[in-house]
Amino acid sequence: MASGTVEQRLRELGISLPPAPAAVGSYVPVLRFGPFVVTSGQLPFRDGKLIATGRVGNEVDMETAQEAARCCVLNAVAQLRAAVGELDRIKQIFRLDGYVHAAPGFHDHPVVLNAASELLTAIFGERGKHTRVALGVHDMPLNAPVQIALWAEVEPS
Amino acid sequence: MASGTVEQRLRELGISLPPAPAAVGSYVPVLRFGPFVVTSGQLPFRDGKLIATGRVGNEVDMETAQEAARCCVLNAVAQLRAAVGELDRIKQIFRLDGYVHAAPGFHDHPVVLNAASELLTAIFGERGKHTRVALGVHDMPLNAPVQIALWAEVEPS
Amino acid sequence: MASGTVEQRLRELGISLPPAPAAVGSYVPVLRFGPFVVTSGQLPFRDGKLIATGRVGNEVDMETAQEAARCCVLNAVAQLRAAVGELDRIKQIFRLDGYVHAAPGFHDHPVVLNAASELLTAIFGERGKHTRVALGVHDMPLNAPVQIALWAEVEPS
Repeated sequence: MASGTVEQRLRELGISLPPAPAAVGSYVPVLRFGPFVVTSGQLPFRDGKLIATGRVGNEVDMETAQEAARCCVLNAVAQLRAAVGELDRIKQIFRLDGYVHAAPGFHDHPVVLNAASELLTAIFGERGKHTRVALGVHDMPLNAPVQIALWAEVEPS
Repeated sequence: MASGTVEQRLRELGISLPPAPAAVGSYVPVLRFGPFVVTSGQLPFRDGKLIATGRVGNEVDMETAQEAARCCVLNAVAQLRAAVGELDRIKQIFRLDGYVHAAPGFHDHPVVLNAASELLTAIFGERGKHTRVALGVHDMPLNAPVQIALWAEVEPS
Repeated sequence: MASGTVEQRLRELGISLPPAPAAVGSYVPVLRFGPFVVTSGQLPFRDGKLIATGRVGNEVDMETAQEAARCCVLNAVAQLRAAVGELDRIKQIFRLDGYVHAAPGFHDHPVVLNAASELLTAIFGERGKHTRVALGVHDMPLNAPVQIALWAEVEPS
């Protein structure tokens, strides 16, 4: 599981993927469907705890929000690895659903989510270039500041 | 249409699926795409009326919100049946999009949506285990408290 | 690129598709995955500028919101064309994700989004009939009033 181009890029980036977090409800964290794979919405858990809570723009500053976005995406990548075995089997990450728990009047969702998008491209190269929806949401499960889900196509085995 | 394992589970659970609700706009309630099927966002309609309206956490209590979530999911399952004919043809429900119309400061979206997720697993068994995104939304069509959409893979015929 | 049934319908409707807008962040505007194609969330850009900003229901009136919804959907169709070459290769638009930046108490999201849904059906006929999720969101990237993404199946070549 630790060989391959993507795993090498992770090492070069100094990233050690976390264990894939458990679901926070009666669902599963990741599933394959046909030649595709989709994760549940990932929250910024690290070592079993949210690294931040609250609304971006007042309780959570931009730097912390971007760190939370990167944390969500690493958890999502860990889910992909748990589902497909080897990250080199990911052919293309084709969608990132990005949700920012935003204070009223906060419109810089793209800036928050760019931290996630750029990390994904750093890890996967061309295969990490994805479409995106970015929303500012009213309230978030467990008061998390960011939630991210990934959809990807898997190489045929 | 009333035979098969899933239909039997519905009977054992004492559930009679409602007719699949009409769309509340210029769209269709369910569509197949390739070997997959997706529903539009389902609202908690029963007998043509919303069983509750308003925000969860102040106007709508947890018990009512969970009942609304179960109502949405039964409507979504009715849509799946309308699209594929027999519920046993559903190979895997791979995604539940869950939206809770939440009062400010309400963070228990997972608890609301677990009622839907657990009903889905009770009906479909392993095939009902899905990934999930849970969001607290600011406002909802028709002031509904919950909205749920399902994505599923269909067995080849 | 200007032949075919869909292009002819566009001409009959007096619609000239805009150039597909660039992404407003570190992502790509449209991607194919297997036999499908998905766009990023499209904002109501025209000639490089948002045609409206603010919340529907107070800062943005219904007529402007519907015009913004139509603008989003034309941008999304332009993305589809950029991805697949000829719009007649779109077999079915199977999903529209519709997000309305709504003022508190605004519940007419379906009315806003119907403008987009009806335009899609006018352009694509049966192939434009889609499922839909409609949400009222708290805040929107760049303070846009509407955001729309499309998912479609592509004819095999």
